Amino acid sequence: MAFGWIDEQAALRRRAGLVRSLRPRPADSPLLDLASNDYLGLARHPEVTEGAAEAARTWGAGATGSRLVTGTTGLHAELERELAAFCGFEAALVFSSGYAANLAAVTALAPHGSLVISDAGNHASLIDGCRLARGATQVVAHADPEAVAKALQTHDGPAVAVSDTVFSVDGDAAPLAALAEACRAHGAGLVVDDAHGLGVLGDGGRGAPQAAGLAGAGDVVVTVTLSKSLGAQGGAVLGPARVIDHLVNTARTFIFDTGLAPAPAGAALAALRLLRREPGRAARAREVAAELHARLTGAGLEAVRPDAAVVSVRAPSPEAAVRWAADCRTAGLAVGCFRPPSVPDGISRLRLTARADLSGDQIERAVRVIGDTRP
Amino acid sequence: MAFGWIDEQAALRRRAGLVRSLRPRPADSPLLDLASNDYLGLARHPEVTEGAAEAARTWGAGATGSRLVTGTTGLHAELERELAAFCGFEAALVFSSGYAANLAAVTALAPHGSLVISDAGNHASLIDGCRLARGATQVVAHADPEAVAKALQTHDGPAVAVSDTVFSVDGDAAPLAALAEACRAHGAGLVVDDAHGLGVLGDGGRGAPQAAGLAGAGDVVVTVTLSKSLGAQGGAVLGPARVIDHLVNTARTFIFDTGLAPAPAGAALAALRLLRREPGRAARAREVAAELHARLTGAGLEAVRPDAAVVSVRAPSPEAAVRWAADCRTAGLAVGCFRPPSVPDGISRLRLTARADLSGDQIERAVRVIGDTRP
Ligand SMILES: Cc1ncc(COP(=O)(O)O)c(C=O)c1O
Ligand SMILES: Cc1ncc(COP(=O)(O)O)c(C=O)c1O
Repeated sequence: MAFGWIDEQAALRRRAGLVRSLRPRPADSPLLDLASNDYLGLARHPEVTEGAAEAARTWGAGATGSRLVTGTTGLHAELERELAAFCGFEAALVFSSGYAANLAAVTALAPHGSLVISDAGNHASLIDGCRLARGATQVVAHADPEAVAKALQTHDGPAVAVSDTVFSVDGDAAPLAALAEACRAHGAGLVVDDAHGLGVLGDGGRGAPQAAGLAGAGDVVVTVTLSKSLGAQGGAVLGPARVIDHLVNTARTFIFDTGLAPAPAGAALAALRLLRREPGRAARAREVAAELHARLTGAGLEAVRPDAAVVSVRAPSPEAAVRWAADCRTAGLAVGCFRPPSVPDGISRLRLTARADLSGDQIERAVRVIGDTRP
Repeated sequence: MAFGWIDEQAALRRRAGLVRSLRPRPADSPLLDLASNDYLGLARHPEVTEGAAEAARTWGAGATGSRLVTGTTGLHAELERELAAFCGFEAALVFSSGYAANLAAVTALAPHGSLVISDAGNHASLIDGCRLARGATQVVAHADPEAVAKALQTHDGPAVAVSDTVFSVDGDAAPLAALAEACRAHGAGLVVDDAHGLGVLGDGGRGAPQAAGLAGAGDVVVTVTLSKSLGAQGGAVLGPARVIDHLVNTARTFIFDTGLAPAPAGAALAALRLLRREPGRAARAREVAAELHARLTGAGLEAVRPDAAVVSVRAPSPEAAVRWAADCRTAGLAVGCFRPPSVPDGISRLRLTARADLSGDQIERAVRVIGDTRP
């Protein structure tokens, strides 16, 4: 029987208490949201949703083809120009998702004979990029520039180090300046995924690379997603124009994928313009995260000090984490729940996101619920 | 210097005449479009663009998280129900792109120790799925069910055959019934990518699997894209509920990717409903393709008989194909141009798409321009 082996795996998952299922949310959820990645609270901002609506009306519901055929509109070009300028890079290239942008950046910059040095805590999309790349991958210890330097020493030929800027599980930041220094000393490139940094870190949300003084560097390539702080969908690669040209010509998830739909492109552009106009939103997201962390630790919970807008709280076991998140939900609070196999270290946790538009009352209520339901 | 090797590759591309660049189109292009994959002419249909706009207003500009956290809305669930029902499968799962759906289906159904048998003409996203899968891949000759049967004979353990239903370059159809028979005889699963079949083939556009009598089969899994006939963005996997559950629990491009944005989901749903109400659009796309082919061959051009809505015309060389497409554009006609490395066989061609909303006059004009500009 063709897919019989699936049932055995499903039974194992059930026994381990690791079954995942989908829970469709209504348009007007009564839950207090500390689970989404909508860090600046822009996904439902009228300027952003109107940016989506207007783009669909003007440009159509879809891009209708690969970016190399009919899928590049003036809207894509505008978004690319403004993203590059905002983050301080020479050029940008928009993809249908952050996942696709990461697959593109890693595979295109790791040719046959090259070395990719990948942080052990990297996001799944970077890991899949390493797996697809023609170059050899060496996984190094988490947030360890010396390990990167050591790996580079023994390699001859093109090399890149690859890292999240803010790790999605624990919300800790990578040591970007030290990583860049290690790479430079060996003539290697640095590819960083700023999915959780854009809109939160750097001046007015210009991102972690800008905060680390790496904006516009000729040996640094940044990937971002349009689906978190910018409240939309899609991804982008930012970097030197020659790298972007190289991606246009070689990246499979660019060449063989339909262009990003106009609606999310228009929404991301509207969100970017709003952020430029209201740069305080980025600092406010960091402030909310710091306050969340202070109150949680004040309540005796084991929370990791946030470097951006993700606050991670440890749970004693996968089952306890699931129950804890469910109890929060019953009490009106949506929180994320990360557990194996989605965590690199096997430790289960609640994952809270600090939105710039959370009020002091909402923060207080969230912390109270989390404390009251702790296992 | 970090990315120095890129310049050498760029120079090689320039010398070979294989440089690709982006050409942003305006919102109101004066070109006659035979290049997009908008087979039913729905990307700019007011019901479809309004579906996008309304979804953004109701549900927000982005899904705000992974489908397993905050990224599943009632709209996603509705789209999945209607897609599954339309195509005749038990369940469906929506992804942010067709590319992501293919990566998910292949990797999740090809575990360690399994065999994936992949048609030599398969789309890049299926090939990348094979590269990412834990199972071993065997590439077999194009459209050759006997080769599939032979490959299956020597393998013990889970196995799937993977194929496009309509191949994107030449527009030829896979021998689905024979493939399914070969798989069944060996207890293997069949995974088919109906990107270019949905909306064009089958009763009222229900797709190639439905046309081949495979809808709802327990050993068949279908991937589709929402970015071609449905004029939006996104992808889906259709199949038995147990396979869909398995994907929810294991597919990395599902678990670690932000859910499809509401706007393209709403647009795809509006397009699907429109197609259900106006089933003649599918037949009309096939009719336009047949007429295009007849007129092109009548004009002495080497065109492949279309099995769906893609009509491929051979060009003598990559340079001639590029010039031909450029001359068509100068004469007001947009056509696709496929050349190495985007073609499996090294043969360059013009790629024409037959839209259901092309008029007889437009078809005639297109063929005249192509004939007049032939190399
Ligand atoms: C660190 C990181 N990189 C990349 C992605 C993928 O981006 P997207 O969801 O926009 O495809 C995500 C989350 O989804 C992420 O957390
Ligand atoms: C056969 C085939 N499969 C999958 C895809 C990927 O779908 P999407 O562009 O929606 O990601 C495409 C084209 O883009 C395709 O032609």
